[in-house]
Amino acid sequence: MSGTLYGIGLGPGDPELMTLKAHRLISSARVIAYPAPDTGPSFARSIAARYLPETVREIPIIVPMRVERFPAQEIYDKAAEEIAAVLESGKDVITLCEGDPFFYGSFMYLFERLSGHFPCEIVPGVTSLTACAAQLLRPLTSRMDILTVIPGPLPDEDIRTRIETAQSLAIMKVGRHLPRLKALLAEMGLLDQAGYVERASLPDQKVSRLADVPDGPAPYFSMILIYKGDEAWTLPPSFSS
Amino acid sequence: MSGTLYGIGLGPGDPELMTLKAHRLISSARVIAYPAPDTGPSFARSIAARYLPETVREIPIIVPMRVERFPAQEIYDKAAEEIAAVLESGKDVITLCEGDPFFYGSFMYLFERLSGHFPCEIVPGVTSLTACAAQLLRPLTSRMDILTVIPGPLPDEDIRTRIETAQSLAIMKVGRHLPRLKALLAEMGLLDQAGYVERASLPDQKVSRLADVPDGPAPYFSMILIYKGDEAWTLPPSFSS
Repeated sequence: MSGTLYGIGLGPGDPELMTLKAHRLISSARVIAYPAPDTGPSFARSIAARYLPETVREIPIIVPMRVERFPAQEIYDKAAEEIAAVLESGKDVITLCEGDPFFYGSFMYLFERLSGHFPCEIVPGVTSLTACAAQLLRPLTSRMDILTVIPGPLPDEDIRTRIETAQSLAIMKVGRHLPRLKALLAEMGLLDQAGYVERASLPDQKVSRLADVPDGPAPYFSMILIYKGDEAWTLPPSFSS
Repeated sequence: MSGTLYGIGLGPGDPELMTLKAHRLISSARVIAYPAPDTGPSFARSIAARYLPETVREIPIIVPMRVERFPAQEIYDKAAEEIAAVLESGKDVITLCEGDPFFYGSFMYLFERLSGHFPCEIVPGVTSLTACAAQLLRPLTSRMDILTVIPGPLPDEDIRTRIETAQSLAIMKVGRHLPRLKALLAEMGLLDQAGYVERASLPDQKVSRLADVPDGPAPYFSMILIYKGDEAWTLPPSFSS
């Protein structure tokens, strides 16, 4: 009997926002895998750290941050090989994933390599999408709203048409695209409806109206939320926390 | 000092998919509120039931299922009044919400009535969106995908244009609209890329290709997920669980 490959969503960053199931599986893990940059610690591992057994075997998947063409295929090939050997020996591998494994997650690079060969189970997690809405204290979607989620690196033209036809919008992975996106939203007259959240649920999170965010690059874990559906949910001019 | 109004996301249904934070707040709750139909038990309460203190005071918000114009404004006016009185007395009110309070949740009917007057905190939860993707064992979104979430009751024309321009689609609240939506997707040649999940994470969940779902109405908690981005993620003909 081979082991099971688990993709475990750990939520947006606050360890208390992981699920009871994630907590149970992590607390009894024998082998874990997780993505890590070559420049510092793994975010996913840091969320789980306090619950990991001392004897756990760790398989870090170290992805160079300088590589242009993400994902680094060879790195995931090698990691999948190492994980496959563990699964073949009958042990489960618990893959730690920030947010949810299937919501813009790097877990899919393992999943596409291993899911045809081994049993897989996904434990869904709280996404940054609703974590950011919670911090903004503004509903993300309601009633018959259409929600559109857009990666920030896409070109302006793609983003503009999506904004025009949605009631609720989230722009993910804002990062260095912040000044461009802010200019686009200002031009479309939507700055007053746009909220900004950086590192949601972490001690150093930032929450504000987009209009109040200084220009310049934002961190990778930053999001713009726009609500066009209901005037009552316009962010007040004084809003920030 | 007034109490705080909490909106607590409990996840899609499996009690183990609630967060550690939701678990902590529910376990020590003195007053809870939750929506319930007049025809049976409250789904949100059933997710939390095993963790509720015996002495907890309960404020059910009973919404008649026969009312055409949801939400029943007077019912939420009255519930907000009762909850306001508790908050004024200095006690917190823990509102139980299936999924996430701000993701198509009825919590907003309380939030819009009370958030201007009392401190509010939202605890995000796992949404049905990623819970369904987990059960389908197919990534919801990756890389630079645009994700669109559409309420099933919307007319065909609205849905069709959204499907044409997105890589990843979720159609929520399928319910009695199932035959119409299935016909639309068949006409668009997308049946093979469409998965269907009903009551995700509950013991009686159903997971299958949309093509294999019998015609006729589906339950309210049912979803269609369509992935157009990557051929590798087409559901195999034999898929079902």
